[in-house]
Amino acid sequence: MHEHSFILKGNLCYSETKDRLSVTEQGYLVCCEGISRGVFPVIPDKYQNLPVKDYGDRLIIPGMTDLHVHAPQYPFRGIGMDLELLDWLNTHTFPEESRYADPEYAEKAYRIFVEDLRKSASTRAVIFGTIHLPATEFLMKELDASGLVTYVGKVNMDQNCTDDLRETDAHVSLESTAAWLRETSGKYPNAHPILTPRFAPTCSGPLLEGLGKLQKEYGLPVQSHLSENLSEIAWVQELFPWSSCYGNVYEHYGLFGGDVKTVMAHCVHSSDQEVELMKKNGVYVAHCPQSNINLSSGIAPIRRYLEAGIPTGLGTDIAGGANMSMFRCMADAIGVSKLYWRLADQNRKPLTMEEAFFLATKGGGSFFGKTGSFEEGYEVDALVLDDTGIRTTKELSTKERLERYIYLAEEGGRLVGKYAAGKELF
Amino acid sequence: MHEHSFILKGNLCYSETKDRLSVTEQGYLVCCEGISRGVFPVIPDKYQNLPVKDYGDRLIIPGMTDLHVHAPQYPFRGIGMDLELLDWLNTHTFPEESRYADPEYAEKAYRIFVEDLRKSASTRAVIFGTIHLPATEFLMKELDASGLVTYVGKVNMDQNCTDDLRETDAHVSLESTAAWLRETSGKYPNAHPILTPRFAPTCSGPLLEGLGKLQKEYGLPVQSHLSENLSEIAWVQELFPWSSCYGNVYEHYGLFGGDVKTVMAHCVHSSDQEVELMKKNGVYVAHCPQSNINLSSGIAPIRRYLEAGIPTGLGTDIAGGANMSMFRCMADAIGVSKLYWRLADQNRKPLTMEEAFFLATKGGGSFFGKTGSFEEGYEVDALVLDDTGIRTTKELSTKERLERYIYLAEEGGRLVGKYAAGKELF
Repeated sequence: MHEHSFILKGNLCYSETKDRLSVTEQGYLVCCEGISRGVFPVIPDKYQNLPVKDYGDRLIIPGMTDLHVHAPQYPFRGIGMDLELLDWLNTHTFPEESRYADPEYAEKAYRIFVEDLRKSASTRAVIFGTIHLPATEFLMKELDASGLVTYVGKVNMDQNCTDDLRETDAHVSLESTAAWLRETSGKYPNAHPILTPRFAPTCSGPLLEGLGKLQKEYGLPVQSHLSENLSEIAWVQELFPWSSCYGNVYEHYGLFGGDVKTVMAHCVHSSDQEVELMKKNGVYVAHCPQSNINLSSGIAPIRRYLEAGIPTGLGTDIAGGANMSMFRCMADAIGVSKLYWRLADQNRKPLTMEEAFFLATKGGGSFFGKTGSFEEGYEVDALVLDDTGIRTTKELSTKERLERYIYLAEEGGRLVGKYAAGKELF
Repeated sequence: MHEHSFILKGNLCYSETKDRLSVTEQGYLVCCEGISRGVFPVIPDKYQNLPVKDYGDRLIIPGMTDLHVHAPQYPFRGIGMDLELLDWLNTHTFPEESRYADPEYAEKAYRIFVEDLRKSASTRAVIFGTIHLPATEFLMKELDASGLVTYVGKVNMDQNCTDDLRETDAHVSLESTAAWLRETSGKYPNAHPILTPRFAPTCSGPLLEGLGKLQKEYGLPVQSHLSENLSEIAWVQELFPWSSCYGNVYEHYGLFGGDVKTVMAHCVHSSDQEVELMKKNGVYVAHCPQSNINLSSGIAPIRRYLEAGIPTGLGTDIAGGANMSMFRCMADAIGVSKLYWRLADQNRKPLTMEEAFFLATKGGGSFFGKTGSFEEGYEVDALVLDDTGIRTTKELSTKERLERYIYLAEEGGRLVGKYAAGKELF
C-alpha cells in the first residue's frame, strides 16, 4: 500500500467554483498516491482496500494557501501597528530583518516560524525571506522538513533601505541570488525558490534587469509588492519616471506575468491601466486584508479583481498582518469587503462566505497547480476541524458550521488533523 | 483577613487617561476589601501583612467591560453574516430569541453563555436578554453566581417584530417589566436590572412613555440601540415623524441621559444634532466595531466622540459581532478607525493602542462606577495574561507585550487569572 493512499471520512466541504461550495456529509475523500480520486457518498468498489480514517462528525476542508507572508517578520507581529507602510518598514521591519545576517539568530527565529506555520491552517505558503543566503537556505530546509509545500524567496534590494540590509549593488545582489539558486536547486522538493525583488523602490533598474535574465534562465516564478500605499506609488513614479504605472516597472523587466508565474501582494490602489495589465498577464493578486487595515493602506477592491477574472488568493502578510490564521484572514477579507462596499463603492458587492473560502483554498492554491480542492486530480491538502468547543444549543447545517468556524476558529475551534500533498502532518 | 484583601504582583498596566498608560514592571497592586489602594514598586509597610499572589513575569491588566452584548444571540454567532441589520434581525435574530419563551431552552443556552463569559476577558457586561421573564431571571441568577458584575435587561418590544416575540401591547410589556423588577429587585447583588427598550422601531410611543415612568420610579439605567444603519434611521423618522433625530425619540420619553445613566449601542450614523444631544446628556456610546463590519453598517466615528468628551466604551454586540473576546474588540476598534481615517474622514485620526485599551477598561468600566483601572479607590477587576505561547526571538518592552496581546490573544495568549470586584474567579 502506498503511504499516501487512503480515504478520509467526515463532513467534506470544498469549492467547485468561487460561487459553488460542495458539501458532502459523512462522505469519503479518496486519495491515491497523494492525488484525489474524488469525494463519494459511499466508497467505490475499486477503493475498498484503502485504509479509511474516520473523523466522525468533524469537518474536513482543503488546506489553505497563504499567498503572501514574511517569515523574518514573525518575531514582531502585533507590535508597532501605529505606522503606515514606509515608516513602519524603516522603524520595525528593516532593523529586524537585518538581524538575519546572523545565522544563529535566523535559525532560532525561523524554527519558531516554521513550527507555528506547520500547526496553522496553511498547507502551502509563498514566503519572503531576507537578503541573507544562509538564513534563507535554513528557512527552506526547515520548511521542506515540515511537510508544508512552499515557495521561498531570497529578497533582492540594492537601494533605499538601511545600510545593513542593502546589497552592495545590483551585481552583488544578482551574484548572491545566482549562488542561492545553484545551492538550493532541486535540493528541497517541497520548498521551491521564487524570485523576490522586495518592491520597486528598493530595486535599481540594473537589478530588476538582471532578475529578468535570471528568471528566463531558471524559469522561476516571481513575487513582489504592488500599489499598497499612496506614498509608495508616488515614490515609484519618481524613481521610474518612464513607467506608465507601478506594475509597468516589473513588466518592463519581464517580471510581471505572461509566461512568468507572478504574484503581487496588496494591489490596494491599482489604476485601471494596472488592473488591465494584471488581467492581460494573468498576474495573481495576494489580497492581505488585515495588513490593509493595520498599515492604514486602504482596502483592495477584491470584487473588481474577481469580476475581471484576475487570479486571486489571500495572504496574512505577517507582520503587516498580525495573525497567522487563514481563517482569520477569510473573516477579515469578508469584513473589509463589506466596508469597501459601504464606504468606497456601492457597486462592488461584499464577498460571500463561499468566495472567501474559495480564495483561501482553490484560488490561492492554484498558484501551486491543482491544489486547494478535493475534486478529482487535485493534490490532497486537507484540514480536519473540530468545532465542538464552539458550543451552541442550535442545530446547524454543515455549511453553517463551516461559516461559524471561519469567524470562531480562534475562539473554540481546534485543528485536529492536517495533510499536505497527501502526507499526514498530524 | 478579609477574603477580598490581597496583593497581586506582576507587570501591571492600566490607563490613567485615554492617552496615558501606566506601566509598572514587577509592581504590587494592593487590594483591600475589593478596592485598590494603588500600585507600588515595593509593598508599603502598612500592607506588609496582606497575602501576595506573585504572577511572575505575566501581565496584569484591569478587567474589561463589554458594554453591549446580546446573551440570547450567543447560539448563532458567526452564522448568517451576509445580511444587513433589518434583514438579519428578521432572518436570524428574532426566530432564535423567540425560543427563549421555553425556560428549558433558555437555561441550556444561557448556561453556555455565562460559562463562556466567565472564562472571557470581560469582568463586567451590559447585557440584553429577551422579553421573557423566567429566561431573563435565570440569566441574572447565573450571572450573579458567576462572580461577574453585570447589568441585565428584560427587553421591551410591542411592535414591528415577529408575532411570537411581540409583547401584546404597551400595557402588557410594562406590567411584565414591573413584575420583573419586583421579582429581581435586590435579589442578585452582582446582576443589576437595566431598562431595555430594544430599539425605537419595536417600541410604541405608549411603551416608551411607560418606560420613562418606570425609570423614574426605580431610578434605573437604560440601554438601547441608536443610529446603527441608514435604513433603520429612515424607519425611525417615519415612525416618529415629530422627532428631530433618532436619539430625540428616547429623549422625549426621558430615556436618554441627563439624570438617567444611559448607554446607546453603535451610533454609526449619528447626526451633528444627535451628537450634540449625546454630549449634553452624557449618554454613553457602546462602540461595536466587529458588528459595524459584519452587518455592513459602516464605521462609528469614535474619534469624534472622544473629542466631544462623550463617555465611550466597547461592545462585542454578540451576535452582530461573532467574537466574545474584548481583546479582539480592541483590535477591531483600532482597525476600523484606521479605515475610517483612510476612507471616510482624514481629519479623524485612528485610535492609538492606549485609547483602545482605555475604552475597553476605564472608559466602558465607568458605566459601573470606579472600575477598569488600578488607581486608588477603584474596584479591583484584574486579568492575568500569560503570553509565553506567543513565541518570539525579540526582546519586548512590557508595553509591546501588551500591544501584541491585543492582536494575538487568540493566537497564543492565555488568560490565567481573573478577578472581578475583588473576587478571584480563577
